[in-house]
Amino acid sequence: MSRPTMRDVAKKSGFSITTVSFVLNNKTVSIPQQTKDKIYEAVRELRYRPNQLAVSLTTKKTKVLGLIIPDNSNLFFAELSKAIEITAREEGYSLIYGNSNNNPKTDLEYMHVFTDHQVDGIIFTKSTSPPLEEDEESLAFISKSATPIIAVDRMIPGSNVPSVMLNHLKGGQLATRHLIESGHRRIGCFTGPLELASSMERLKGYRSALAEAGIEYDDTLLFEGNYQLGREEEALEYLLQRGVSAIFSFNDIMAFGLYREAQRRHLSIPRDISIVGFDDIPFCSILLPGLTTIRQPIADMGKCAVKVLLDRINGAEQPNENHLFEPQLILRESVRPV
Amino acid sequence: MSRPTMRDVAKKSGFSITTVSFVLNNKTVSIPQQTKDKIYEAVRELRYRPNQLAVSLTTKKTKVLGLIIPDNSNLFFAELSKAIEITAREEGYSLIYGNSNNNPKTDLEYMHVFTDHQVDGIIFTKSTSPPLEEDEESLAFISKSATPIIAVDRMIPGSNVPSVMLNHLKGGQLATRHLIESGHRRIGCFTGPLELASSMERLKGYRSALAEAGIEYDDTLLFEGNYQLGREEEALEYLLQRGVSAIFSFNDIMAFGLYREAQRRHLSIPRDISIVGFDDIPFCSILLPGLTTIRQPIADMGKCAVKVLLDRINGAEQPNENHLFEPQLILRESVRPV
Repeated sequence: MSRPTMRDVAKKSGFSITTVSFVLNNKTVSIPQQTKDKIYEAVRELRYRPNQLAVSLTTKKTKVLGLIIPDNSNLFFAELSKAIEITAREEGYSLIYGNSNNNPKTDLEYMHVFTDHQVDGIIFTKSTSPPLEEDEESLAFISKSATPIIAVDRMIPGSNVPSVMLNHLKGGQLATRHLIESGHRRIGCFTGPLELASSMERLKGYRSALAEAGIEYDDTLLFEGNYQLGREEEALEYLLQRGVSAIFSFNDIMAFGLYREAQRRHLSIPRDISIVGFDDIPFCSILLPGLTTIRQPIADMGKCAVKVLLDRINGAEQPNENHLFEPQLILRESVRPV
Repeated sequence: MSRPTMRDVAKKSGFSITTVSFVLNNKTVSIPQQTKDKIYEAVRELRYRPNQLAVSLTTKKTKVLGLIIPDNSNLFFAELSKAIEITAREEGYSLIYGNSNNNPKTDLEYMHVFTDHQVDGIIFTKSTSPPLEEDEESLAFISKSATPIIAVDRMIPGSNVPSVMLNHLKGGQLATRHLIESGHRRIGCFTGPLELASSMERLKGYRSALAEAGIEYDDTLLFEGNYQLGREEEALEYLLQRGVSAIFSFNDIMAFGLYREAQRRHLSIPRDISIVGFDDIPFCSILLPGLTTIRQPIADMGKCAVKVLLDRINGAEQPNENHLFEPQLILRESVRPV
């Protein structure tokens, strides 16, 4: 079955295509209310819906946003993507999306493809792989692009693209302060990759909380992870040998690894070792004991990214600013007061 | 900066727009190789890329697929969506997607919006909420739609849309047989919602495995869940009172709930109670003990859905068949031989 066209609406209502087009596109032409009513009636009866391609060629707007994320099977990005998609829909936009698998080459490919599709704007979480030629090319593309872009979760170094992200430093402070207030003094850090800004900021927060409490910073209490599972065995072994009573894990996934490793060694959390995570992904509350962690307001950040992008699309003059979101300490049972 | 247009390519190469258009659109017109080379050189130098909107109006293809899923923050759908997006990209298609939150009204809304955007095809996991007026409307829309549609994970009852899904019955058999072979005779079932086909099929598999082993089916060993957390306390209490030594949980999330509840009661898995899950989401291997479960080949199913849909888009005549995928038993440590 073919879709009803504007021609069908014209035929049914008895008016010309031009008149129908004026009415449906809200052109500021004086047209009697009676005529409008008849045309809207025909639209309803025929269940006419405008062809978005034709509309786009006229308005130069596609009502589509592009989203580039590293990996939709990572719960953080899955939730972010969902929040972005739902906000976009509420605002009358559809979302086209791509997984870069943290490959800057794929970032660039998506930017080209999305621009070919004439998306009205792009929401972008940059890949974290080491800088490549494609990374340079992406930056060049971004700086010349006429399509509004907003960075989410991570800034785009070297560009002046606005961003929406967490105050990671504050998050590091909250986690560390909570451990200090619970009486811990030797606090291990199971960090993310230290070339990432998020990881460095969390570490700065850790250091500043130690400084506040007059505890000397000791870089031998750091163990570098990669935000994924796999290094927990080595990390726990190392940090226990260094005599820590608590570990600040820079994300929840790595904290889950520590849980598993602690169980394997018949260590009890929090009796033998206290743990604080970061992100507050849904599985934190399923664990026993529940994982005390730092919540990122993922839904709010996704919503904000869409709103700021739409403001830019709609031509609002804005400074290219960073929108920093505040983290929140979520207390569960994985920290023991000493 | 505005994008280079076909006009720019014509200017740069010194040929007419018509010639450039013939060459770039591979029109079967005799054009000297030398001309073609010069035009391609101009394309490369200008980094010209065709405007996909203009291409779409000519070819009547947008090279965009639509995906409607219940919830991208559910790991199963997040992985499915990723597999679909990556396969689509490999085939030269972009993916536009929407979260229905299991609301048939939203299903319908997306079908309209995606059709307005002239997507070339739609991949659809139908909402499972009770049938509403919108459900009827969706069915009517699907039966009249000129846009190819494929159902994934769930069939669309009442339609003749082809589908890609797991052989849920076989999955139920595999899980139950494994428990029987491990010596369990009183096996509790923590089911999904029994109005869902997936749940009913898994239950059929459970019954058939019992029958094979000459164990009488006892419907008092069933406890109905909803595929989510929240009923595990009641379920475990009930099933233990019924004297079961093992529980087949119809998905992994509910199995995680049982783990948590068992720990709370100081019961050991598998010493005091054996558990088999369903889905094999990544967290199964993080748990201690690792959860024995039934793997759905999510990536393969996503890939297949895209391929079958593209075949239909490209006009291949095909029966509207079901593509059933085989589940696999993944052995970990949550079942004790008795």
